[in-house]
Amino acid sequence: MTNLLPLILKKREGGKLSQDEIFGFIQSLTSKSPPPDYQVSALLAFIVAQGMDSEETYFLTDAMKNSGKPFRYSGFPKSAFFVDKHSTGGVGDKITLPLVPLVLACSDRVYYPTIAGRALGHTGGTVDKLESIPGFKCGIETSKFYRLLKKNRGCFLSQTKDIAPADRVLYHLRDVTGTVSSIPLITASILSKKLSESLHYLLIDLKIGSGAFLPRREDCEALSQRMLKVLSRSGVSAEICMTNMDTPLGRYSGNLWEVLESFQILKGEGPQDSTRLTLNFAERQLVATGMSASQAQSLIQSKIKDGSALKMFEALLEAQGAKLKLLDRALKSLSQLKSFTFTAKTAGFVRIDVTSLGLALVEVGAGRKTKADKVDSLVGFEHLAATGDRVESGQPLLKIFYRDSKRLKACLKILESTFQLSSETQSKSPLIAKEYKQ
Amino acid sequence: MTNLLPLILKKREGGKLSQDEIFGFIQSLTSKSPPPDYQVSALLAFIVAQGMDSEETYFLTDAMKNSGKPFRYSGFPKSAFFVDKHSTGGVGDKITLPLVPLVLACSDRVYYPTIAGRALGHTGGTVDKLESIPGFKCGIETSKFYRLLKKNRGCFLSQTKDIAPADRVLYHLRDVTGTVSSIPLITASILSKKLSESLHYLLIDLKIGSGAFLPRREDCEALSQRMLKVLSRSGVSAEICMTNMDTPLGRYSGNLWEVLESFQILKGEGPQDSTRLTLNFAERQLVATGMSASQAQSLIQSKIKDGSALKMFEALLEAQGAKLKLLDRALKSLSQLKSFTFTAKTAGFVRIDVTSLGLALVEVGAGRKTKADKVDSLVGFEHLAATGDRVESGQPLLKIFYRDSKRLKACLKILESTFQLSSETQSKSPLIAKEYKQ
Repeated sequence: MTNLLPLILKKREGGKLSQDEIFGFIQSLTSKSPPPDYQVSALLAFIVAQGMDSEETYFLTDAMKNSGKPFRYSGFPKSAFFVDKHSTGGVGDKITLPLVPLVLACSDRVYYPTIAGRALGHTGGTVDKLESIPGFKCGIETSKFYRLLKKNRGCFLSQTKDIAPADRVLYHLRDVTGTVSSIPLITASILSKKLSESLHYLLIDLKIGSGAFLPRREDCEALSQRMLKVLSRSGVSAEICMTNMDTPLGRYSGNLWEVLESFQILKGEGPQDSTRLTLNFAERQLVATGMSASQAQSLIQSKIKDGSALKMFEALLEAQGAKLKLLDRALKSLSQLKSFTFTAKTAGFVRIDVTSLGLALVEVGAGRKTKADKVDSLVGFEHLAATGDRVESGQPLLKIFYRDSKRLKACLKILESTFQLSSETQSKSPLIAKEYKQ
Repeated sequence: MTNLLPLILKKREGGKLSQDEIFGFIQSLTSKSPPPDYQVSALLAFIVAQGMDSEETYFLTDAMKNSGKPFRYSGFPKSAFFVDKHSTGGVGDKITLPLVPLVLACSDRVYYPTIAGRALGHTGGTVDKLESIPGFKCGIETSKFYRLLKKNRGCFLSQTKDIAPADRVLYHLRDVTGTVSSIPLITASILSKKLSESLHYLLIDLKIGSGAFLPRREDCEALSQRMLKVLSRSGVSAEICMTNMDTPLGRYSGNLWEVLESFQILKGEGPQDSTRLTLNFAERQLVATGMSASQAQSLIQSKIKDGSALKMFEALLEAQGAKLKLLDRALKSLSQLKSFTFTAKTAGFVRIDVTSLGLALVEVGAGRKTKADKVDSLVGFEHLAATGDRVESGQPLLKIFYRDSKRLKACLKILESTFQLSSETQSKSPLIAKEYKQ
């Protein structure tokens, strides 16, 4: 059994862990003689309390990445440019779904290998959204992944045991020991997985506001700075956009509802905010390949107009097993689900607690309370009011599509404290609050 | 399973735990659904990092005490005055052995129920010293303990599951998670056990110097202040003496050797330092019962002179199973053990690393490296030079009584770095550096 006591004592006294110490610690986690949980959690607690500098964070990220098997692209064109996007999560954030095919439709050079996660807590998961499509599977073999990526230039993959397995060990423990909120630990967790994709460019969508996992601006700023330092030392070019999660993103939330909205975006019929974010991100990723901004913009417009972005999406989905006819039927039947309209009890300016909104969505069946829970693809929300909107008494705030009246009741109970109506003007946060580039 | 996450998060953010939170935590440790180790160690780490104030420390101590069954003295005389002494441990500290009978011989009012510990690490343990006496047992039933205490007014008890069991759970975890060195945790650990004895008065011998578990003076001062606050709130009168552990205490160390020295002290033939400390502590405890200092001093002298202190010691030992004839034979045969004299390689002023000296003593067999190790009663050291002494090249520093030449070799290896001889004068620390009273 690996003994972490020397590292614990060093970090307790505010010392700096060496590259060897960090590598030894991370390697031990997935070895045959891992350290005892109680030592790992004590070390994590002292890391939270004492911090880690940028160099330690880089070593930690690198060690966690190398606990698995980072992607190796043999047999790909020399011009291939590997990109991905990571979002820190929120309610209604389906941007990955339309973004991947849009970017691929605009540039033959781009390859988009994206590792996606499942819903947990109040935030949705890209894997659950995609797997609400009949037949679609994110869990694919490594060999199939490379084959699909080579053929279609894009592939949606759920996390496997080969992708930063030390992160999973640490994350399970952090979740139950109060050691989640730490800039170095968050940085290493996010980037170890994304750097496993061996990218040229990474775009990070860092949510800020009441539905973000780091709601406070100063924490987001600190996390951004730290991530950029690690990305720079890793030789990956990157941008970080701090985007608004004070209100849900787009028109719908809920798994198949978000697939529906993704199709709308790719057809040029999507809601204003989610469309704008998709197009903005696509432009950034295309510019990263060397295009000019105006060239990227006009390509994006034309690939939506001529339907090739949509076609690209369908091709990607079919390649991973989607039955498009069944999907079409499922999307058309969505609005036939039972619904309940939640209205404003008084007039006023709306402020939404987006974390609470996400938990209400879980309650109605769209997410998970525990890992074992099954996700209901069909239930969801249509968002009829945003933070900052002025509404009258009785005006609809939210339409709830539900299946089970017990779950609706539980959902409504949470919604009672989700929407605040105040007589004072509520400021609307900008969609993109800040951007960083390195 | 008890979930400590709310407490962890509160302490992580520097919050103050309430009495109810602390009681709930401590009670859970020995309950049927204890919290997972990894949560306990994370909470301990955040307590080490963020601290606890005096009130939290009191609640922690009180909760730990009440995790067991504090002593209840029914059927004892109303005038009974319950005292004890606690030492934070060192090399050659056998003071408890002569102190208990000396104080009992001087006052009929005093009752001395003393819970003692075993050797671990570089410090010796009173239980091991006493149990080196043929037939003697510290592990006795609670009913027998009360009977012996009522009859003889003194009893040496090893820790039982009824005495602050939560301390044992925490201590095992602290030992392997780097969460030992914390003023509130140390305070609660020491005092929860001693307050279980339901005392009127407690004397704490807080060792300072190279052989102490807290070598630095500022840490000793902080611990003293905190312990006095908790003792005051607990309604126990107390004194703390900070005493010298920059050099071993007395002439001998090693289990039966320290019993030998205890008899010498009680006969008035002991070495100067251990005798002085025994008499000083006896005087403090007698004064605590209401005696004047001069009355106490003259009683102490006469009870040594007339042999009644020695008789009291023999009575206490016999009551717990000691075979005095076998002991006498064992003590007489001690000097027949093989011995090796360790000498100064150069001339100079001596400085002893007492922790290293204690580890050398463990190596020769007098202590334990792991809990399962057996202690050898007969091996030991005779200390022939103290820190601050001037010695010539070739002059004896230490006589080692050993049984196994392999173990002697290992011991000598450690001793190489135990004694430093320098050309500069080494200051001699005072035997009692500081005293506190409340």
